Amino acid sequence: MCRWAAYRGMPIPLEQIVSAPGHSLIEQSHHATEAKTATNGDGFGIAWYGEHPEPGRYRDVLPAWSDCNLKSLARQIRSPLFLAHVRASTGGATSRDNCHPFVNGKWSFMHNGQIAGFEKIRRPMEAALCDRLYQARQGTTDSELLFLLALEFGLETDPAAAFAQAIRFALSEAARAGVRELVRFTAAFSDGETLHAIRYSNDAQAPTLYSAPTCNNQGHCLVSEPFKDTDTKWHEIPAGSFVTLTAGGISSARFDPAQTDAVKVAEVA
Amino acid sequence: MCRWAAYRGMPIPLEQIVSAPGHSLIEQSHHATEAKTATNGDGFGIAWYGEHPEPGRYRDVLPAWSDCNLKSLARQIRSPLFLAHVRASTGGATSRDNCHPFVNGKWSFMHNGQIAGFEKIRRPMEAALCDRLYQARQGTTDSELLFLLALEFGLETDPAAAFAQAIRFALSEAARAGVRELVRFTAAFSDGETLHAIRYSNDAQAPTLYSAPTCNNQGHCLVSEPFKDTDTKWHEIPAGSFVTLTAGGISSARFDPAQTDAVKVAEVA
Amino acid sequence: MCRWAAYRGMPIPLEQIVSAPGHSLIEQSHHATEAKTATNGDGFGIAWYGEHPEPGRYRDVLPAWSDCNLKSLARQIRSPLFLAHVRASTGGATSRDNCHPFVNGKWSFMHNGQIAGFEKIRRPMEAALCDRLYQARQGTTDSELLFLLALEFGLETDPAAAFAQAIRFALSEAARAGVRELVRFTAAFSDGETLHAIRYSNDAQAPTLYSAPTCNNQGHCLVSEPFKDTDTKWHEIPAGSFVTLTAGGISSARFDPAQTDAVKVAEVA
Amino acid sequence: MCRWAAYRGMPIPLEQIVSAPGHSLIEQSHHATEAKTATNGDGFGIAWYGEHPEPGRYRDVLPAWSDCNLKSLARQIRSPLFLAHVRASTGGATSRDNCHPFVNGKWSFMHNGQIAGFEKIRRPMEAALCDRLYQARQGTTDSELLFLLALEFGLETDPAAAFAQAIRFALSEAARAGVRELVRFTAAFSDGETLHAIRYSNDAQAPTLYSAPTCNNQGHCLVSEPFKDTDTKWHEIPAGSFVTLTAGGISSARFDPAQTDAVKVAEVA
Repeated sequence: MCRWAAYRGMPIPLEQIVSAPGHSLIEQSHHATEAKTATNGDGFGIAWYGEHPEPGRYRDVLPAWSDCNLKSLARQIRSPLFLAHVRASTGGATSRDNCHPFVNGKWSFMHNGQIAGFEKIRRPMEAALCDRLYQARQGTTDSELLFLLALEFGLETDPAAAFAQAIRFALSEAARAGVRELVRFTAAFSDGETLHAIRYSNDAQAPTLYSAPTCNNQGHCLVSEPFKDTDTKWHEIPAGSFVTLTAGGISSARFDPAQTDAVKVAEVA
Repeated sequence: MCRWAAYRGMPIPLEQIVSAPGHSLIEQSHHATEAKTATNGDGFGIAWYGEHPEPGRYRDVLPAWSDCNLKSLARQIRSPLFLAHVRASTGGATSRDNCHPFVNGKWSFMHNGQIAGFEKIRRPMEAALCDRLYQARQGTTDSELLFLLALEFGLETDPAAAFAQAIRFALSEAARAGVRELVRFTAAFSDGETLHAIRYSNDAQAPTLYSAPTCNNQGHCLVSEPFKDTDTKWHEIPAGSFVTLTAGGISSARFDPAQTDAVKVAEVA
Repeated sequence: MCRWAAYRGMPIPLEQIVSAPGHSLIEQSHHATEAKTATNGDGFGIAWYGEHPEPGRYRDVLPAWSDCNLKSLARQIRSPLFLAHVRASTGGATSRDNCHPFVNGKWSFMHNGQIAGFEKIRRPMEAALCDRLYQARQGTTDSELLFLLALEFGLETDPAAAFAQAIRFALSEAARAGVRELVRFTAAFSDGETLHAIRYSNDAQAPTLYSAPTCNNQGHCLVSEPFKDTDTKWHEIPAGSFVTLTAGGISSARFDPAQTDAVKVAEVA
Repeated sequence: MCRWAAYRGMPIPLEQIVSAPGHSLIEQSHHATEAKTATNGDGFGIAWYGEHPEPGRYRDVLPAWSDCNLKSLARQIRSPLFLAHVRASTGGATSRDNCHPFVNGKWSFMHNGQIAGFEKIRRPMEAALCDRLYQARQGTTDSELLFLLALEFGLETDPAAAFAQAIRFALSEAARAGVRELVRFTAAFSDGETLHAIRYSNDAQAPTLYSAPTCNNQGHCLVSEPFKDTDTKWHEIPAGSFVTLTAGGISSARFDPAQTDAVKVAEVA
């Protein structure tokens, strides 16, 4: 289980989310309180949008708490939309290529959760990719593969449907392989304009997700765990949600991959 | 293009091959003279056999010349059979998982060379692996995949035929994909008992390979480039060779993957 | 606060202490139970004695739990005397040069504890070193400097007196600098023949230390925390102890740096 | 010997200097042509000025050519004043703390060159630092120490005089220690407003330094070696020069540490 935070709004220095608050993401890399594991020390990464369509990215294999580069970058880089992640591996080596966020063209993606028995269904999942996305694989994680499958299944045109199909695909391949059918999936992703998040599990333990207006209402923050500052009003996103952050604000819809049309009645949060 | 060295004989400290001679492997990581690139600074690795059937292994992403761990390990570890490699990437990130030697069970393998257009034929090469070997992939290099294919094609029972089939497979898939049919392959591998090496290319530029008795005739050494000590009598292995080192000495046979029975008339060197 | 383990006895694979037991040192790198911090993820190191007077050493900056090299080395390397350490930094960057064990000639040393206000007294501590030891500094930790000071103060001839003098020196310089006079010091060190350990603090919180016969009485183990196997009879070493392990067994004496003759009435444990 | 590049002018993406030109700094990390060593693979670093008085910094121990983070950062970060460095160690481990640029408050500094016999005179050089700068040491290089000495000797008020005094100090301590009196020093440094460079050696081999207007005359570039683009008019800075880049353009003065007033007759280049 990992921890992550994402932001969309007026441009702010990354450190306001990554390292400054009382219970920042870096703090959570040491002492997560709502995760299965308190320590998230198997690497980290940030992806942020600036002048280019594709995001910048910095990933490394050290624990976030001891990386002096991350501290300096988070202080200097200002962005209106960014993702930050600290990793606790559920499998896969501690290498840069296995660190989130994953990036493909203009898209960025990060994930907290897991696919049970991933090794048994990795093969059909990879087989479902077109040649271009097959060649785009860099690491060995279930997370990267769910992201590539979503790209395969139409992330560009319908993000909720694409991830719903990717999750359905993993569950059906797990059934076929005779392993436990379990996908826990709390993720954030963006094309540089809109920031999306999903909180989902097909059991009762969807990894937590919270949202709050932040930085004097200049933007919104989505996080695995609330920061410890007392001023921010955190709102827990219920399991089975698809969250959308645009210039117009935050909205949430029901997310249920078991339904072919994954996203139901949209409702403004 | 990379540089490597392998040894079989009486147990010696690894440093006698890795770091001590005038033109040791570490020296070659800085100043290779017979390679396309003089610098081999994209990681390194050693695999050695000791008490266990499977070899020990140490790999890292720094250049070999600046790794203080390697220097200490090479001085302390004594082995009768070991492989050492310095990497110059022809593709694939600089990560531990992409560093040679690759290991699978008791087998170790390292490679100097390349498959032209690998990205275009990676998919059918991976598809040819059984589930167990498919799951065993850790990095993203053509080298690791040739090793896994050889395991798939019977490395255990007929090493020369297995690598010949792996190379034929790559060449035929290149033809099918419409990319240049080129495999350059100078490699060493072992099961902990016998040390094998192959020098092969389907063009006229097979990466170099030399052998020599070493350490007062206590063992034999196979290397990409001769060391600069004046006493050792280096013998250039011709292209199209399959070399075998056992307790009984060194022998060489013709290696021609274009023939179904890859290894012809064995001749003692 | 860090965690460490040391062994002296019949040669055993390092993994029997480093990675195999239920609550091994690698397990403690994740979940220490008697330390101020549960996570010891700021690098690790091992030093072991083999054929040479000086020990071999492997250190790296990743958490011990995610380092595949460490696992392989601990399985392959067999030694009659070794030290292993997982680090939780109290200051000083996460770099190889700041990872324990520290080595100087045949001596190895590792430490759990701290000097309060070290930055304020580092200068006079370094000034007390002879030119040779001044040049031997590689990192920036209080631990390395205490080791070098002990070498300066006669570690070769009287280890207990040398460390007592080093600790007295640090305390008196703290007094002179007007900072809190506090040295917590639970350490192990060796010349390749004898294994020593000290448990000391000038307040009431000396970091824990335990000993036990291990590996079917083939040797003795000294550890920050007992392993979780049920068979081993762990003995807590009291604060203010100087422990000595030789071929003849384990003995313990009182260690009180406040006394000029640091080690009093030796008693066999 | 290292290679470096520095820029001052209209804000540009770092990649225009670091990675884009035909013979960029990253290219030079592989194939320097005017250096003693062609390979500069012992780490790298960038420091750039943005919204804060102190610069941002990213350093790592991999060769620059294989670091995917550097490529992404150089593409995303835009700055009016930055320094970039690829390292070929003349001593000192390959650690982040030994990688240039060094930073202290608002000042940044990088260096190509060496002090002969540095280990013999490191002690008096460190002793000359005030307590604050003594505590600011992070690595073990001669370069960092020359920078700290310049801060000690008045970098804030008279940069040329401060570095002249630092070099004189090193030379006189070398004389006192009986080692070869040799300082080769081609360096760049900045306070975030002005960019300075020095080319100096007390023998005839001052490491090379070139300047050119760049990016359609939007700024000036200072480099160890000219890039391979044909359009830029490179000007070789003569040995014994102190270069100053401000909003008003570039100027150069004579730099001779042997004279107490180091900088003579300023002349606009």
